[in-house]
Amino acid sequence: MKPVKVGICGLGTVGSGTFNVLKRNEDEISRRAGQRIIVAQVGARRENPNCDTSGIDVTSDIFAVATNPEIDIVIELIGGYDVARKLVLTAIENGKHVVTANKALIAVHGNEIFEAAQKNNVMVAFEASVAGGIPIIKAIREGLAANQINWLAGIINGTGNFIMTEMRDKGRDFADVLAEAQALGYAEADPTFDVEGIDAAHKLTILASLAFGIPLQFEKAYTEGISQITQDDVKFAEELGYRIKHLGISRRTPDGVELRVHPTLIPKQLLLANVEGVMNAVMVDGDAVGQTLYYGAGAGAEPTASAVVADVVDVVRTLSLENGNRVPHLAFQPSALSDLPVLPAEEIETAYYLRIHAIERPGVLAHITKIFGDSGINIEAIIQKETTAEQVPVIILTQRVKERVMNDAIAQIESLDDILGKITRIRVEQLKD
Amino acid sequence: MKPVKVGICGLGTVGSGTFNVLKRNEDEISRRAGQRIIVAQVGARRENPNCDTSGIDVTSDIFAVATNPEIDIVIELIGGYDVARKLVLTAIENGKHVVTANKALIAVHGNEIFEAAQKNNVMVAFEASVAGGIPIIKAIREGLAANQINWLAGIINGTGNFIMTEMRDKGRDFADVLAEAQALGYAEADPTFDVEGIDAAHKLTILASLAFGIPLQFEKAYTEGISQITQDDVKFAEELGYRIKHLGISRRTPDGVELRVHPTLIPKQLLLANVEGVMNAVMVDGDAVGQTLYYGAGAGAEPTASAVVADVVDVVRTLSLENGNRVPHLAFQPSALSDLPVLPAEEIETAYYLRIHAIERPGVLAHITKIFGDSGINIEAIIQKETTAEQVPVIILTQRVKERVMNDAIAQIESLDDILGKITRIRVEQLKD
Repeated sequence: MKPVKVGICGLGTVGSGTFNVLKRNEDEISRRAGQRIIVAQVGARRENPNCDTSGIDVTSDIFAVATNPEIDIVIELIGGYDVARKLVLTAIENGKHVVTANKALIAVHGNEIFEAAQKNNVMVAFEASVAGGIPIIKAIREGLAANQINWLAGIINGTGNFIMTEMRDKGRDFADVLAEAQALGYAEADPTFDVEGIDAAHKLTILASLAFGIPLQFEKAYTEGISQITQDDVKFAEELGYRIKHLGISRRTPDGVELRVHPTLIPKQLLLANVEGVMNAVMVDGDAVGQTLYYGAGAGAEPTASAVVADVVDVVRTLSLENGNRVPHLAFQPSALSDLPVLPAEEIETAYYLRIHAIERPGVLAHITKIFGDSGINIEAIIQKETTAEQVPVIILTQRVKERVMNDAIAQIESLDDILGKITRIRVEQLKD
Repeated sequence: MKPVKVGICGLGTVGSGTFNVLKRNEDEISRRAGQRIIVAQVGARRENPNCDTSGIDVTSDIFAVATNPEIDIVIELIGGYDVARKLVLTAIENGKHVVTANKALIAVHGNEIFEAAQKNNVMVAFEASVAGGIPIIKAIREGLAANQINWLAGIINGTGNFIMTEMRDKGRDFADVLAEAQALGYAEADPTFDVEGIDAAHKLTILASLAFGIPLQFEKAYTEGISQITQDDVKFAEELGYRIKHLGISRRTPDGVELRVHPTLIPKQLLLANVEGVMNAVMVDGDAVGQTLYYGAGAGAEPTASAVVADVVDVVRTLSLENGNRVPHLAFQPSALSDLPVLPAEEIETAYYLRIHAIERPGVLAHITKIFGDSGINIEAIIQKETTAEQVPVIILTQRVKERVMNDAIAQIESLDDILGKITRIRVEQLKD
């Protein structure tokens, strides 16, 4: 089958991330899509040191990509309103499918763009326009298609959430955290879009249309920023059992749809209240499913690229629809399943929590730790409670080790005279990387 | 366009939920799918008092549904291995598309079923087989298609999580909580499938295949139950900064894939550690996207029906693919967008947090509360700190009220002599219903 050719317009943060993910995961992606996907052309005013475009046709004229007869899918990553609109409409008129990460474009010009796409029989995909790598558009548009959506509420601007998190965690002031966010590159030099809620309103406008089946109406969104929140508010909220988050909320009422972005007190035990730093999350309440939540990185080169490339795979899978199975049952094409074995339990590596019941006698801990040392098992923590009983529980947290090695060490320890009964073991996972 | 006809086999909890959701949300669903979807036949040994099948062809012979030439999509909700396998294969051989919620069936007989589907050119969809209403299969199979998945970890059995939550929250013992879960109907009379991790292993087997592109290999999953966990373990874990959760974990290593279900200590600040009661959640770590999390109800009539019906919509959207746009841009078909208006900000209803700076003088609180009373605004809580300063902050939490009413009350309060400057207001949302 001949490869699908994509053209990337814009080689900034997301553009370079998309270029790199398509290249690095080329094999994995083609096993999923059923066809090879190659970057045939890049339209960018300048090269990006984060990606190696050698051997690729790079043009400074992005419109050359949109009209290139070789290109099947145009990926719009230049941002902004006017040029992006013209670029996308040109690509559509030239029969290209379009993938974009541009929330401002979709929120403001989406109705026009979708109509053009419908007329020209091409796909326009925009998963990356909301909440970066979280597949929230797919979740609402497809995964929750059975539901009357009642409302949704999301942390959909990472900069704003970073500021609110720092204000609460470290008692810092708004202006101080904003300055740091700008220095770290989270916030733009002009932070208005982020802290005044305009960026969030773009994204909320899109989510509300998907949830309630209404045309995009960004101009009707109510926005309020976080610059007026003080340390006092953060502390009083906490005292009342709440946390302040900058949320986009859309709710269906009998009279119409609420569309609003503002700082919001939410109960602090909610998962949404515990979404920290630059992370994003969206809660959706549907009449059948109840409440669901979607969490992940809302920005950044590769998280956003993850959504862009997923859209490309979606387009390719629909294009190559030959039988009923647009998406392969097991995600990868049947002919591309791997023979990577499932490991036997003995070969699994984890850290361990061990509860050992020992007779309170000098030297017992030394015996235990010697066995671990000889087995090459590192100890992370030990709890040994003072007790008046003859029998003491010794709790040990180990570092990661193969199950086989742990089985052997446990057998040795259980055979010590000082040890009573069987050792309880529970596995420990940091779930970090 | 002629309606799509579905046949439901099995009218238990999920069957009746599916029947009811298809009926209640018929309009909303057809606006999304582009075609009407009607239940043309039900195969069930007995009626279910939770749904009104009057006017529907109900047969006690489920195989009559699988071979009925009128039926386009067979929904298998009878559960179990053998009869379900035969039913699904019969439907496939008769050219029907199949939607199933049966994890045991897919985990054990999936490879055979998918091959038959491929051969007969029909779709087999199974979103409801893992984590109920959470669209986790769609997220991994489509939403994260750009990534090399590194690992995934999930709370994918609600009964087990309910038991672990109660043990930690209320200091109760395993046996005691299990008995309650059985009385509440969360746990089966034979709780082995839930508490020994077999149900979770079925689901994990499916997720691992989707993530890593390997055939289904349930027989190689390692499972360990939660019946051995004691109160001591729960407390020591807490002391070490961890929580014990019954997780399904699958990880890709250079040598193979780990596939394991067991009690696990995880850091207590993780969102996954804060998933309580019968709720489910799955964390997925991909090389591009980083970590994402998907949360929602993992069981129950309507949450599971949400996933079943989403699969039906997926099948219908693929069937009716006439132009490139399988899924409509804004989730609903362009011709079915609604003219439900976006409400002006004044009509939005929320609760409020107000910070009022008042001169410390008798009667000031009475003035404020009278204005609220006259406006029909109910007060939820008041914080007034003792202070030596002349100026005191008064914090008021109100119940829900239209913004218009609040604007008016605030204007009245700000005009009082005792009040200094502007009142700070932040909206409050419970995000409960």
